[in-house]
Amino acid sequence: MILLAVDIGGTNHSVALVGEDGAVLEKERRPTDRAGGRRWMLRQLEATCRLLIEKAPERPAACGIGFGGPVDFPKQVIQRSMHVGGWSGFRLAHHMAAVLGLPCVMDNDANTAALGEYAYGAGRGSRSMACLTVSTGVGGGLVLNGEMYRGPRSFAGEFGHTPLVPGGPPCACGSRGCVESVCSGDALGKAARLEARRRPRAWSAVLRQAGGLRAIEAKSVFDAARRGHPAARALVLRYCDDFGRGLAGLIALLDLDCVVLGGGVSMAGNTLFAPLRRAIARHMPPFLPRAWRCLPAALGPNYVLCGAAQLALRYTASAECGVRSAE
Amino acid sequence: MILLAVDIGGTNHSVALVGEDGAVLEKERRPTDRAGGRRWMLRQLEATCRLLIEKAPERPAACGIGFGGPVDFPKQVIQRSMHVGGWSGFRLAHHMAAVLGLPCVMDNDANTAALGEYAYGAGRGSRSMACLTVSTGVGGGLVLNGEMYRGPRSFAGEFGHTPLVPGGPPCACGSRGCVESVCSGDALGKAARLEARRRPRAWSAVLRQAGGLRAIEAKSVFDAARRGHPAARALVLRYCDDFGRGLAGLIALLDLDCVVLGGGVSMAGNTLFAPLRRAIARHMPPFLPRAWRCLPAALGPNYVLCGAAQLALRYTASAECGVRSAE
Repeated sequence: MILLAVDIGGTNHSVALVGEDGAVLEKERRPTDRAGGRRWMLRQLEATCRLLIEKAPERPAACGIGFGGPVDFPKQVIQRSMHVGGWSGFRLAHHMAAVLGLPCVMDNDANTAALGEYAYGAGRGSRSMACLTVSTGVGGGLVLNGEMYRGPRSFAGEFGHTPLVPGGPPCACGSRGCVESVCSGDALGKAARLEARRRPRAWSAVLRQAGGLRAIEAKSVFDAARRGHPAARALVLRYCDDFGRGLAGLIALLDLDCVVLGGGVSMAGNTLFAPLRRAIARHMPPFLPRAWRCLPAALGPNYVLCGAAQLALRYTASAECGVRSAE
Repeated sequence: MILLAVDIGGTNHSVALVGEDGAVLEKERRPTDRAGGRRWMLRQLEATCRLLIEKAPERPAACGIGFGGPVDFPKQVIQRSMHVGGWSGFRLAHHMAAVLGLPCVMDNDANTAALGEYAYGAGRGSRSMACLTVSTGVGGGLVLNGEMYRGPRSFAGEFGHTPLVPGGPPCACGSRGCVESVCSGDALGKAARLEARRRPRAWSAVLRQAGGLRAIEAKSVFDAARRGHPAARALVLRYCDDFGRGLAGLIALLDLDCVVLGGGVSMAGNTLFAPLRRAIARHMPPFLPRAWRCLPAALGPNYVLCGAAQLALRYTASAECGVRSAE
């Protein structure tokens, strides 16, 4: 069985043919023209989907969509877009089902990413897992007892706005010290720039490498820490202690056996994961068995697409929410 | 249909006859003799259960047990007792099923309390809720999409050990600043005693009312705050701000529509709930709809018993974990 998978983000959008084993057979990835809005995006999507359907060795059984914004899953309606206007209240799955003549189902991209890693990636074999995308912000999806957990209003997984540091850095949500304002890639970059401004001598090698204060970002910090730079290593340890504290609470609350991290920050490899795992272990209630893993996303940039395919596959096999095709 | 319900705590244990509508028809409540250990407790339980079965207008359909310690739910084995030795690894449901000739099912008391409030109490009509018992410690149970969520190792619901205040008060679990070490009734009492020692004049009325520094506990603080005592009111506000921050994170993470609070602290009524609800609202990500309620447990001290009855009822109607009787 072949599935059509769509990933709509604020920077890029992708369409792919995915096997039911999660293998990406064909993929088209293009930049998103934010100014073009919904109309532009729909024309692009339709053309790319048709192109891939023609290329497919057999007709795709269904289409799964991961959308970069909150989706009311039972109603299959976009609640709003994080990036551009014109999507709020739009029934994208209904539209695509009518246009393509395929059963369609959509979810927000954090949930599809989680489903992808659960079915085909780092979460395979786990029963309850969280998948967090750590880059500009911190998005999250929860798979509990093998099922996507969305909550009554499809808002579940908002780990990014769990309070972590009372009175901490201001968050985009209006609160302070949320996980996102402390643990996102942007937050780490910002913390490094603050440190480098305060102690330019200690940070001189990082400043030189990055090409100036403003160019320092999360990657600069991890690269410097990997080279053994003392100030960068100290900052990574502090970052991991905060993040690990938050993750320990999440693991204990939901008895998770796996936490998967995707997004830019997760590319730092063991420079991130080794101290992060130590921090989680340090903050876990000691009476709980150490039965958790913390792993980088295994599907890389394809995790939303693979999850969208898995969503479509589950849809074909169940009476779950979605839109049967008009054909 | 009539259910037999058992609630085993460190201080008291109760056995009751409960209707399938949650009405407690008969109840026997007795102090737990901790020194007596498991053997003493089993003799007590058997005698009390037999007594109530004789009193019942019809034979109970099943027996539900809420146990004061972690239970491996799929295996129906007690993992350990928080209070006394001798329970670890014991198959209490198997034992009771054999002794009483009734189908038996057990869970930890935090989960049964949550199920009770969900089915018969303050959580009725909600889809996803947390029920927290706030007294000596902070215990928790999660009902998600109408089902008890226990997690792969039956440890889910450990909200008491979510990190809340970095470097905060030491917690019984070995960590610092957990919800339990900041928001339990014991923690509030301890914070009040610290304050009263530091500023005896500001706390003089509370000291007098309680009868000395050592006698100040959570109830003293809420009583004084209700009477308008400025220092007690300030402490309650600080307590609610911390607790509300934690609850906001929990509600956002799981998209809960209801949080129910039981235990001693919840008896403080609006002196607690009014500032607590304001604190939750203040700390919630503003982009989430205000669709949550925060309510005191409606079943009072019977919530574990009613939940044990609901657990037994669900067991009779499903193939869930439990022990069919030997009969």
